[in-house]
Amino acid sequence: MGSHAIDLITIGNNFGTAEMRALWDDKARIQKHLDTEAALALAEGKLGLIPQEAAEKIAAAADVNLYNIEDIAAESARLRHSLMGTINALERQSGDAGEYVHFGATTQDIVDTGMMLQVKDAYAIIERDVHIIMEELASLAKAHQDTVMIGRTHGMHALPTTFGFKVAVWLDEFIRHAERLAESKARIFVGNMNGAVGTYASFGPKGAEVETETMAHLGLNTANIGWQSARDRFSEFGNIVALISGTAGKIGNEFYNLMRTDIGEIEEPFTEGEIGSSTMPHKRNPALFEGLASLTPPVLKAVSLLHESMGTEHERDAMHWRQEWVALPEISIYISGQLSILKNVLDGLTVRKDRMAANLDRQAGLIMSEKVMFELSDSLGKQTAHAKVYKLAMTSFEQGLNFGDVLKADPEIAANHSDAEIDQWLNPSEYTGLAHEKVDQVLNAYATYLQGEA
Amino acid sequence: MGSHAIDLITIGNNFGTAEMRALWDDKARIQKHLDTEAALALAEGKLGLIPQEAAEKIAAAADVNLYNIEDIAAESARLRHSLMGTINALERQSGDAGEYVHFGATTQDIVDTGMMLQVKDAYAIIERDVHIIMEELASLAKAHQDTVMIGRTHGMHALPTTFGFKVAVWLDEFIRHAERLAESKARIFVGNMNGAVGTYASFGPKGAEVETETMAHLGLNTANIGWQSARDRFSEFGNIVALISGTAGKIGNEFYNLMRTDIGEIEEPFTEGEIGSSTMPHKRNPALFEGLASLTPPVLKAVSLLHESMGTEHERDAMHWRQEWVALPEISIYISGQLSILKNVLDGLTVRKDRMAANLDRQAGLIMSEKVMFELSDSLGKQTAHAKVYKLAMTSFEQGLNFGDVLKADPEIAANHSDAEIDQWLNPSEYTGLAHEKVDQVLNAYATYLQGEA
Amino acid sequence: MGSHAIDLITIGNNFGTAEMRALWDDKARIQKHLDTEAALALAEGKLGLIPQEAAEKIAAAADVNLYNIEDIAAESARLRHSLMGTINALERQSGDAGEYVHFGATTQDIVDTGMMLQVKDAYAIIERDVHIIMEELASLAKAHQDTVMIGRTHGMHALPTTFGFKVAVWLDEFIRHAERLAESKARIFVGNMNGAVGTYASFGPKGAEVETETMAHLGLNTANIGWQSARDRFSEFGNIVALISGTAGKIGNEFYNLMRTDIGEIEEPFTEGEIGSSTMPHKRNPALFEGLASLTPPVLKAVSLLHESMGTEHERDAMHWRQEWVALPEISIYISGQLSILKNVLDGLTVRKDRMAANLDRQAGLIMSEKVMFELSDSLGKQTAHAKVYKLAMTSFEQGLNFGDVLKADPEIAANHSDAEIDQWLNPSEYTGLAHEKVDQVLNAYATYLQGEA
Amino acid sequence: MGSHAIDLITIGNNFGTAEMRALWDDKARIQKHLDTEAALALAEGKLGLIPQEAAEKIAAAADVNLYNIEDIAAESARLRHSLMGTINALERQSGDAGEYVHFGATTQDIVDTGMMLQVKDAYAIIERDVHIIMEELASLAKAHQDTVMIGRTHGMHALPTTFGFKVAVWLDEFIRHAERLAESKARIFVGNMNGAVGTYASFGPKGAEVETETMAHLGLNTANIGWQSARDRFSEFGNIVALISGTAGKIGNEFYNLMRTDIGEIEEPFTEGEIGSSTMPHKRNPALFEGLASLTPPVLKAVSLLHESMGTEHERDAMHWRQEWVALPEISIYISGQLSILKNVLDGLTVRKDRMAANLDRQAGLIMSEKVMFELSDSLGKQTAHAKVYKLAMTSFEQGLNFGDVLKADPEIAANHSDAEIDQWLNPSEYTGLAHEKVDQVLNAYATYLQGEA
Repeated sequence: MGSHAIDLITIGNNFGTAEMRALWDDKARIQKHLDTEAALALAEGKLGLIPQEAAEKIAAAADVNLYNIEDIAAESARLRHSLMGTINALERQSGDAGEYVHFGATTQDIVDTGMMLQVKDAYAIIERDVHIIMEELASLAKAHQDTVMIGRTHGMHALPTTFGFKVAVWLDEFIRHAERLAESKARIFVGNMNGAVGTYASFGPKGAEVETETMAHLGLNTANIGWQSARDRFSEFGNIVALISGTAGKIGNEFYNLMRTDIGEIEEPFTEGEIGSSTMPHKRNPALFEGLASLTPPVLKAVSLLHESMGTEHERDAMHWRQEWVALPEISIYISGQLSILKNVLDGLTVRKDRMAANLDRQAGLIMSEKVMFELSDSLGKQTAHAKVYKLAMTSFEQGLNFGDVLKADPEIAANHSDAEIDQWLNPSEYTGLAHEKVDQVLNAYATYLQGEA
Repeated sequence: MGSHAIDLITIGNNFGTAEMRALWDDKARIQKHLDTEAALALAEGKLGLIPQEAAEKIAAAADVNLYNIEDIAAESARLRHSLMGTINALERQSGDAGEYVHFGATTQDIVDTGMMLQVKDAYAIIERDVHIIMEELASLAKAHQDTVMIGRTHGMHALPTTFGFKVAVWLDEFIRHAERLAESKARIFVGNMNGAVGTYASFGPKGAEVETETMAHLGLNTANIGWQSARDRFSEFGNIVALISGTAGKIGNEFYNLMRTDIGEIEEPFTEGEIGSSTMPHKRNPALFEGLASLTPPVLKAVSLLHESMGTEHERDAMHWRQEWVALPEISIYISGQLSILKNVLDGLTVRKDRMAANLDRQAGLIMSEKVMFELSDSLGKQTAHAKVYKLAMTSFEQGLNFGDVLKADPEIAANHSDAEIDQWLNPSEYTGLAHEKVDQVLNAYATYLQGEA
Repeated sequence: MGSHAIDLITIGNNFGTAEMRALWDDKARIQKHLDTEAALALAEGKLGLIPQEAAEKIAAAADVNLYNIEDIAAESARLRHSLMGTINALERQSGDAGEYVHFGATTQDIVDTGMMLQVKDAYAIIERDVHIIMEELASLAKAHQDTVMIGRTHGMHALPTTFGFKVAVWLDEFIRHAERLAESKARIFVGNMNGAVGTYASFGPKGAEVETETMAHLGLNTANIGWQSARDRFSEFGNIVALISGTAGKIGNEFYNLMRTDIGEIEEPFTEGEIGSSTMPHKRNPALFEGLASLTPPVLKAVSLLHESMGTEHERDAMHWRQEWVALPEISIYISGQLSILKNVLDGLTVRKDRMAANLDRQAGLIMSEKVMFELSDSLGKQTAHAKVYKLAMTSFEQGLNFGDVLKADPEIAANHSDAEIDQWLNPSEYTGLAHEKVDQVLNAYATYLQGEA
Repeated sequence: MGSHAIDLITIGNNFGTAEMRALWDDKARIQKHLDTEAALALAEGKLGLIPQEAAEKIAAAADVNLYNIEDIAAESARLRHSLMGTINALERQSGDAGEYVHFGATTQDIVDTGMMLQVKDAYAIIERDVHIIMEELASLAKAHQDTVMIGRTHGMHALPTTFGFKVAVWLDEFIRHAERLAESKARIFVGNMNGAVGTYASFGPKGAEVETETMAHLGLNTANIGWQSARDRFSEFGNIVALISGTAGKIGNEFYNLMRTDIGEIEEPFTEGEIGSSTMPHKRNPALFEGLASLTPPVLKAVSLLHESMGTEHERDAMHWRQEWVALPEISIYISGQLSILKNVLDGLTVRKDRMAANLDRQAGLIMSEKVMFELSDSLGKQTAHAKVYKLAMTSFEQGLNFGDVLKADPEIAANHSDAEIDQWLNPSEYTGLAHEKVDQVLNAYATYLQGEA
């Protein structure tokens, strides 16, 4: 029975998906170790370091379903060595070929390569979800390209914008994330098979070939030189996840704020039978939005831990790599939770145009003061217009008067501008600038991105 | 099957103890929720808010062994509410008393109080282990009160010290930790039972009594005012764990360094059959020391996460408390792992006095240059003595000559000091200052501490 | 010219106060080193290790105003030793007593003790401001003990509370902070004067007396054993600052949210001539509230850095103490900024009761559904009442009907309860539970605290 | 007078270079704001939004040397607006063109673009130094391609390696860093000029052209859509710095450990007159190495802060961007310190081949046990050979016997292998595997990289 929040059956799904958790459990971990041992044996068989037949026997035995994980764990515990239980079990299962298991390899070769295979699987899920989310964001941006709402800076009503514009900013961010994921793959997906201090001494002169061949079996690249003491690849993976998680958490927080009772412009998907509050029957909480936002801080902590693991000493040490054992599953699982929620909420989002429109009026026209200032600049000059609008806006603000009424009552303005003209200035839909065009630009960039992928 | 490193059966024991993990699993968590509901019912029964008989039925039903955890989890998932599955199950189990379950309480009351009960249990384990470790450190300091070794600053040989002195510094640190644990208890162990926004509105006029009575049942204190939106108590717990973990990790790192092949002054307990390296048969790795050192970074990250959870919005939010769900088990489990290893290694430590003695000679007397400088200060004055010793030490250092020989060959020194006198200056055992007395002082402080406890 | 945000003349005041910055500049740092050297000399003079007269000369020379800081910095740079420039300058200034400067001390003695003196000065400012803030919070809680406003959980309207209750939660938190500050002083304010590896070897048999006497001069305590390799005291200081900063940042964020245009219940002090926005003349930004909230994250990062500095190696190293040089000024300066803003905003806060009242009505009575549920429980039983209220609340919520109207239209309810009774149920002021009493309880706790201080 | 460690004249040079600090001081910051205002004016002049002549006057006034920074700061403080002092000063300086200063722009446009210009300048320094360091690492790897030393894992002697191999691992890491820097430039170096909520509303229909033209003047790219609320570019910069700093700190820690008195294989550059210790005249501390290692933790904290700044709310807020004001200078300055020290120490490093050779013998041949095991595997089979070598190694280890003597005394071994053969097995230089070839491979990769750059 698990004890970490990720593994509690009552709350674990708030922190990640079952799909991603499955990549990091004991079974998956041991399978990756076995895959690596099998690939090594096959490579060595091909290159003549061990008998071909032995290699095939080892490869056939490299299936986690043949083993009892509790037994492997017990043996590792007894030997106080995290991999020895697996190696011994594989040796026994391989019969007379057992002699050739793990030939020339060091523990770290298997553990590093196995963990990189897990990272690669996690990466695939992340990349898949990033693509789905881009598609959903593109639809949402398009659907709300002209849905006018108030833009808020410092939490205060500023100028009109569109919901589509807001979403397009996120889509543009996700395009960058997708590019980052694509760019880094070749650099990150690299295994290790080079012996105790990375020199291949135990493999003999064909060491480098053994490594290349092993990695080819596993679908990994080979490094210029062993990276047992160079852990930046895991940190680079963490860096990208930090950025994706940063965006996902920001969106969660944004939706949470827009769903506030006091704003009400957005609602999260709500399913029949769901309980908002145990004592307040009508209350629908932004549970998904909060969940989405809540996972960025633990991701960032885990990324910091990964960064620290770069400080490995000498040819390697176990103080630093333990940080990877903690942090790599954490960032993978938390981000799986975030991307999963994000897909879900984007798909089922309720956009309350009525509330957006109502909120635009909340300041009785004052949000249009910048626009008024620019309109008046032509006749009065910028400085004078600024000063006048400042004064009239303050009158409206402090006395609770409608800004349009205040403007119309000003003799200097009234002399040059009709009430109808002033009413038009104060229409928020007329002051969204190039919001529509910018959404198109991002959608075009997305289309270009997709073509590049195809 | 778990996915977090803490919960992997193959490696989980590197990250914490089974004893501590058991405090944080689904079963323990649900039991604490049930305990809280039971205490609430009993309090309300006594105060006449619900029938006494119903209270007793609820209390009798508050045993996690009566329930199927998978079912509770499934119901919570269906309702998308982390506590509702448990409440519903308890209601059903309570028969006609079910109506009175959770009467007036809000989810957060149960979750906060339950979590505080878990923290209290974790605290007890930590405190117990801190006391055991103090005892072991005291023994070790006493045993090695006069074991002379080189003191190292900046990694370089500096002056002689004793192993007992080094250990006494740690003991003194642990005395402070024990004081911190004791001081903070009353402030930290406080539950919540005050309704949706903390005002007791749903409990009626006896709300405050309900809370006090409930907490008395649970062995917790009652706050001046509800703390649903004031999370500093968990952070204070985290703060103390950070300090203990800081010391534990430092000791792990110190032992790791002292066990280096190049130093060899300390060895960790090694058991028959243990595998050091899969390819280097003679190699004994400092696996326990590395394990001890490796757990401080994840503790510190989790403490940061707890600190961030203080930022809760309005009367409460779920974005911040999720950080607690992650961080509280993490710090408890990691520190359990550290304290467990520390007990183990202190108990079975090998102190290599021969290597300590040999290493004292490594610099051919140069470590005694400060002593020589002070001895010469009387006759030559401090500045002159400093300059002369500096010059002669450099000669020794750069030409690889024994420092004693260099000193004896200096005419000015030889004029006033015999070779025997110089030899005495260069005896490290004569230059440990008040190391012996300071060990006594710390042991006395420890004895005083124990008397205060008794 | 400074480069860190703290030191920019254009924006530095956003990050801390001039008063606190002055404790951490070159001048203050050197003065503390000189104070420590002077105290050492006077102690040694008294104990006969150096001539009394020399001690007095050194003490007279220990005034930073006698020196050119650039020259000291240049000499330190040339010697590549952070303290040597100061020691040499003091020696020269002390004339023939110069020989006795820094007698028996090691660099770390001076640097550690000097830094602890800076911490003590910073502590005094923090404690002073915490007391002022408590006073302001107490006034505010009293003034708004019955100012009813909506309580929000998960950002959603929940139940009524009072503004005084909200403030009392903060006051209670600050009482805990004040207690933490008071409790930790004796443990934290401890200096070091024990030589290169802490054994007093260079001071001779009177070493321990030299240390005690030196610390008495400086107003610091003496440790059981030297703490050159035990840095938990600085971390404990950091821990308390983390908690205070957590509360301060939370209040900043709370006010920021309550000032949102969409809520408008709170306004920060605004001074004539202040510019909200360069283009939106009417816009008043929550600049102080944002500033208050913005400083918690950097404080928490610096506290983490302090925690890491606990990992010092062997008898000491410079890798870890550099973290203290960064983190101690940072946390002191950032918290000074937060406390300063907090004093300011609490003092000049505008509480918009009209907006609080208006916002209570925003959900057309639905926030009273819990109250209605409890009222109906008597006649219908809890479960049935819950189900009915749930259904009616949903009708009101989904159809946009006033909740009171929906309740009155329900035949089962109407049969037993008059419209007037229902109207009374829906009055938020009638459903603030024991909010008033709890404010009193906290104010009483504060009064008790003050008596304890006096 | 500065108060942050970065800005103390006595110790600031330990934390960064004067060159980098100059990019982040008040003067540089204001100049970038002026540059941005000038570029905006010129763009608007060209596009006809403001008079061409006014644009030129503004551009001429955009020189920080024309202004008194204290006055600007004072005016900003009075207006409580971080940019207004600069805008007002520029307006006054521009005479009758002042009316056209900042036309249509919002504060954030200027601040974001100005900060990106600072980042770009910092980036150039980092990239320059990374290239210099690669060159130095390449020389060092080449020079020590065959310098045999002991490889250490878990701090314990493992197998022979070469110093060149160790350095080549770092060079390979730096090649990846250089690639990361190059890849990310186009994505990161993007400015903002799009008005209060990013829609260009205040610029009219030519808004997008104004932005593109302004950025062209400044040497920055234009985004698909404004990034006032999308801060990932700064975090991406931080990510790369984290990786570079991780490598730099690791090298610092490695050298620190290799310089330990107990190892002595490496010495840092030492200059005449430098003071190691104020009381231990012969002591040379690894001050540069410690300095190099010490700066990674604060970099990582600042990168975390940057990551958190991604969480900006709505169209923007000031809580999050303050984190950037703190973190961007910090990471730039700390990394400048690290790269500067790294250049210095690589350039003047002393490699003690004698000590490397001596240390290889420290375990009396035991480090060659893996090699012996492989040699014996041919005749005895892997398992049997492993068991035998394990037993003999333990005999040697526990009884303190020379491993060669133990091997030669074993009848089974002696039967098949001559003493000379065994001596050859035990020669560390014969067991460095493909270390030589791997160094070549990395040097070739570096050559290829340089060709790609050229």
